[in-house]
Amino acid sequence: MTVTRGFPDTEFRARVARLQTALTQAGRTALLLTTEPEVRYVTGFLTRFWESPTRPWFVVLPVTGDPIAVIPNIGAHLMSQTWLDDIRTWRSPDYDDDGTGLLADTLAEVTAPGDRIGVPSGGETHLRMPLADWDRLRTALPDRDFTDDADILRQARIVKSPAEIDKIRAACAVADRAFDRVPEIARVGTPLDEVFRRFQMLCLEEGADWVPYLAGGLGQGGYGDVISPATQAPLAPGDILMLDTGLVRDGYYCDFDRNFAIGPATDAVTKAHARLIDATQAGFASARPGVTAADLFHVMDRIVTGGAGGSDTGRLGHGVGSQLTEPPSLIPDDHTPLAPGMVLALEPGIDMGGGRIMVHEENIVITDTGAEWLSTPQSGPIRKIAP
Amino acid sequence: MTVTRGFPDTEFRARVARLQTALTQAGRTALLLTTEPEVRYVTGFLTRFWESPTRPWFVVLPVTGDPIAVIPNIGAHLMSQTWLDDIRTWRSPDYDDDGTGLLADTLAEVTAPGDRIGVPSGGETHLRMPLADWDRLRTALPDRDFTDDADILRQARIVKSPAEIDKIRAACAVADRAFDRVPEIARVGTPLDEVFRRFQMLCLEEGADWVPYLAGGLGQGGYGDVISPATQAPLAPGDILMLDTGLVRDGYYCDFDRNFAIGPATDAVTKAHARLIDATQAGFASARPGVTAADLFHVMDRIVTGGAGGSDTGRLGHGVGSQLTEPPSLIPDDHTPLAPGMVLALEPGIDMGGGRIMVHEENIVITDTGAEWLSTPQSGPIRKIAP
Repeated sequence: MTVTRGFPDTEFRARVARLQTALTQAGRTALLLTTEPEVRYVTGFLTRFWESPTRPWFVVLPVTGDPIAVIPNIGAHLMSQTWLDDIRTWRSPDYDDDGTGLLADTLAEVTAPGDRIGVPSGGETHLRMPLADWDRLRTALPDRDFTDDADILRQARIVKSPAEIDKIRAACAVADRAFDRVPEIARVGTPLDEVFRRFQMLCLEEGADWVPYLAGGLGQGGYGDVISPATQAPLAPGDILMLDTGLVRDGYYCDFDRNFAIGPATDAVTKAHARLIDATQAGFASARPGVTAADLFHVMDRIVTGGAGGSDTGRLGHGVGSQLTEPPSLIPDDHTPLAPGMVLALEPGIDMGGGRIMVHEENIVITDTGAEWLSTPQSGPIRKIAP
Repeated sequence: MTVTRGFPDTEFRARVARLQTALTQAGRTALLLTTEPEVRYVTGFLTRFWESPTRPWFVVLPVTGDPIAVIPNIGAHLMSQTWLDDIRTWRSPDYDDDGTGLLADTLAEVTAPGDRIGVPSGGETHLRMPLADWDRLRTALPDRDFTDDADILRQARIVKSPAEIDKIRAACAVADRAFDRVPEIARVGTPLDEVFRRFQMLCLEEGADWVPYLAGGLGQGGYGDVISPATQAPLAPGDILMLDTGLVRDGYYCDFDRNFAIGPATDAVTKAHARLIDATQAGFASARPGVTAADLFHVMDRIVTGGAGGSDTGRLGHGVGSQLTEPPSLIPDDHTPLAPGMVLALEPGIDMGGGRIMVHEENIVITDTGAEWLSTPQSGPIRKIAP
């Protein structure tokens, strides 16, 4: 790994040291990780092969010592290029025992009877192994206490290192350039699915490694939702086109959107867009250490709904990092205090009536004294695409 | 939904009828589904929003009646465009109850005390909800028996309908065209990450909706593995370049690769490539209803290893469909009898020595009397890229 791609080993050693301190404080003897972002966080193991659901992958982090990878042998070559030394493999898929035995042996080695083994169990987590194997694992180690991870991983990952922030900034810059080029690919009559396809090509041409997320909306004076794939509907005058991308560069995401008016914008659209920009700017101006995620919600919600308490998307922003969306959530119930190094999407939305909405989104990072933009913030009126 | 995109409702009604027959036979009163391919299989709900891990999504399929979606309200608009009528939503994320209560109520409504609720639990599955919520759900319904789904979903999904096969064929055709254009983007000196980026652009230009998977390898006379992301290494004479893509068109994947010799190929490479083609052709010639996944493994393994029992990738092929890889696995222990409508990747690999391998891959569908190619099968010598 070079400095420009991936991280130096010191990055991972610092992460592991923080996790191990937290494990000690929480009374856990080991951490069991099974998902892509969890495994990558402690190892640096970066592959799109997680797209294949066939094989389980495990990392065991003991309270002292280095992490241990317990993985299918198809991954041994790539894992050996990370900083890990202890890589244990089996030939997967194995219908008799798809790694559960090897994992149980590893956990038995680094824990003692009565010890607690932390497994991420709270919001935004899941266990990436078959439920039947999860039962087998606990049966194989009846005297170990498999419990939650006391949110250790969430708390560690929520604050990004300077090197992580650089990667997110680079991803944002790629999307910035791609959004600037949307008028090249979107014209009246262009089918929406062609816009989606060409926009992904722009993202790649501008430097994305891959484009795992693109959603958007298209409709007269607003769109129905922000999670839909493309229809074949052609762009028409009066439409609002919204593109929302989560592209990846060196393992890190950006997540922000842009709205475009096809032809002249109605007064309602112009005003709504201005209000979304205002809300985002107000969120940015309020963002600093000690302010909470809920505070940011209320600052923006006062502008977009007059303080009604938000909209159907359920939140007005979220964390961004090695996943498209991460904690915290900008909702009234999230009292996470912002801290330097947290990267956030500010994502206010407005109900346009008639089942239509408009959503605007920017990415920021919390600094010691306030916040910095990671995306180039939009200002002024909604961008127009000449009919 | 039109006939060219998505499916008519009859497709989903047929799927549900088959699942409900199987539920009855297995003594389950309902099925609980939590992952993207499971939810999409019964509803047609297609979105890239699953990339966000924040919110859980549920579908309950009772043993009689239509499926019920229990989902975050951000998805209500898109789900309302599927064939489902019963869509129950909550505002997510909710830190007090992120849908577990609504799900418990729904399950209580369609089952009786003592009933068994099937949850996919076997190989290649996982439960996409926080473990803590899974515990809450079972605590909320102490008199229901949450158990495995008796592999009902695996058995239903493993056989593709004619409409599904058409979509996979279309995805394969896109990749075929993109692979034909590789010489446009790969030359001596081109960095591998630039090849990856440009190849994804070709896939999109040729009709991919998105490109969730691209891996590959590059090395003198072979490569180290088949799951790595791109390095910045420039293509050099004597290198073998392998690109393996799983692109999506209308929700369905292809999954096959191509090898290219940069400059003249060595004798070892020429022979290995010919052996991989022979193995794939032999697998294809043997593929017909009643032959097992293990049989196909042995037919190919005899050619690539002389019958040694395979290589470190662990298998010589697998199913393909709404996921990049699906059951069955072409391994000695998978005795699944092939049946018309099964779509497979044949993926033999050869150990080139010195930690290098070569892998070739094609996609086929089992017919009533044999098999048909879905990718355009490669024949003749390895493709060369002039230095």
